[in-house]
Amino acid sequence: MMYSELMFQTTFIVTSEREGDIIDITSQVKKVVRDSKVLEGIIHLFVQHSTAALTTIEFEPGALSDLRHALSVIAPDNADYAHNARWGDGNGRSHVKAALVGPSLTIPLTGGILMCGTWQQIVLLECDVNAGRERTIVCTVIGEN
Amino acid sequence: MMYSELMFQTTFIVTSEREGDIIDITSQVKKVVRDSKVLEGIIHLFVQHSTAALTTIEFEPGALSDLRHALSVIAPDNADYAHNARWGDGNGRSHVKAALVGPSLTIPLTGGILMCGTWQQIVLLECDVNAGRERTIVCTVIGEN
Amino acid sequence: MMYSELMFQTTFIVTSEREGDIIDITSQVKKVVRDSKVLEGIIHLFVQHSTAALTTIEFEPGALSDLRHALSVIAPDNADYAHNARWGDGNGRSHVKAALVGPSLTIPLTGGILMCGTWQQIVLLECDVNAGRERTIVCTVIGEN
Repeated sequence: MMYSELMFQTTFIVTSEREGDIIDITSQVKKVVRDSKVLEGIIHLFVQHSTAALTTIEFEPGALSDLRHALSVIAPDNADYAHNARWGDGNGRSHVKAALVGPSLTIPLTGGILMCGTWQQIVLLECDVNAGRERTIVCTVIGEN
Repeated sequence: MMYSELMFQTTFIVTSEREGDIIDITSQVKKVVRDSKVLEGIIHLFVQHSTAALTTIEFEPGALSDLRHALSVIAPDNADYAHNARWGDGNGRSHVKAALVGPSLTIPLTGGILMCGTWQQIVLLECDVNAGRERTIVCTVIGEN
Repeated sequence: MMYSELMFQTTFIVTSEREGDIIDITSQVKKVVRDSKVLEGIIHLFVQHSTAALTTIEFEPGALSDLRHALSVIAPDNADYAHNARWGDGNGRSHVKAALVGPSLTIPLTGGILMCGTWQQIVLLECDVNAGRERTIVCTVIGEN
């Protein structure tokens, strides 16, 4: 099956209010997929910041709270961070959490539909200690229609 | 080098028996690569469930056991989970582990061969507490032949 | 917008000196992007080893030290590892860390530029206990120019 491909790239911004925010971006991602006109392929998402991350989870307050807690076991609020000692900006734990979860996520598309599971939403994790941050997500859709 | 691309998409299912199963899916992935006819490019894998995850590891019982243990340090069996309190389904720890490891993995192909290291197998982590689950993996191959 | 795509694949090698090395590979990745001639698209990176991993972080000694520490909370130096008991090679903790962070990272390109944030560098994590290892990173660029 030889064909000419489609590629589509765009960005959208979400604004977080506070550390630990987990924001459901599934509807924004669906809109990008529609705008791309791609039916079969992949959408790649990338958050352009070192103190935020992307993953999937069941978007349910209990599960979100549990994920926040687990991240604070790995990088506790009150530990000593070398980053904080050097820069005095207090977000050493933010960098650690974001690096572990990672900035990049790719999801398949079939028939123009995101192939996530029913209980699997796409989320941005706000790991920074500073409130009210605008987070840019770069979306690249590659596939065919 | 201008060329027309190939894209190929399919799914396969693996069935887990119990929580903590780590299943080597490398041979199924190799079959998809062969079926795709793609020689140079990438294969993207995505598990369509919020309590399973994909990664690579040396598929050796000791390393698998060590990975299970590390995940249980992050999300212990006997901790209190807000997800469980709300839904009574007992898989709060499953959601946490799956969100941290992630549902998405991409591997390069060269000459029709998966470019994994010798000791680097592709695995599905079954994080759910409920046994005998069918897990769907969506495979998208993009490249040229 | 129909077009013919470009794909470009290459590898580069970085040499680590010791366990815990976190190596900034951003400049090598930028060179691959330039060599690929791709302007809009993605670059996929994959480390072909089961005791190394890829992620992004602010490349600042404090944050790197904090990340190393967090990984040693998940997989402590002095814990008992089943992998070590079986193989006597001492790198049980290495496999665990690498499997959690993962071998695969994809970054978008716009106008031939890597779309990372200002404080977001691409890094290889050397998780192995053995020093002086050559690590191969497979790079696949997909997009258009």
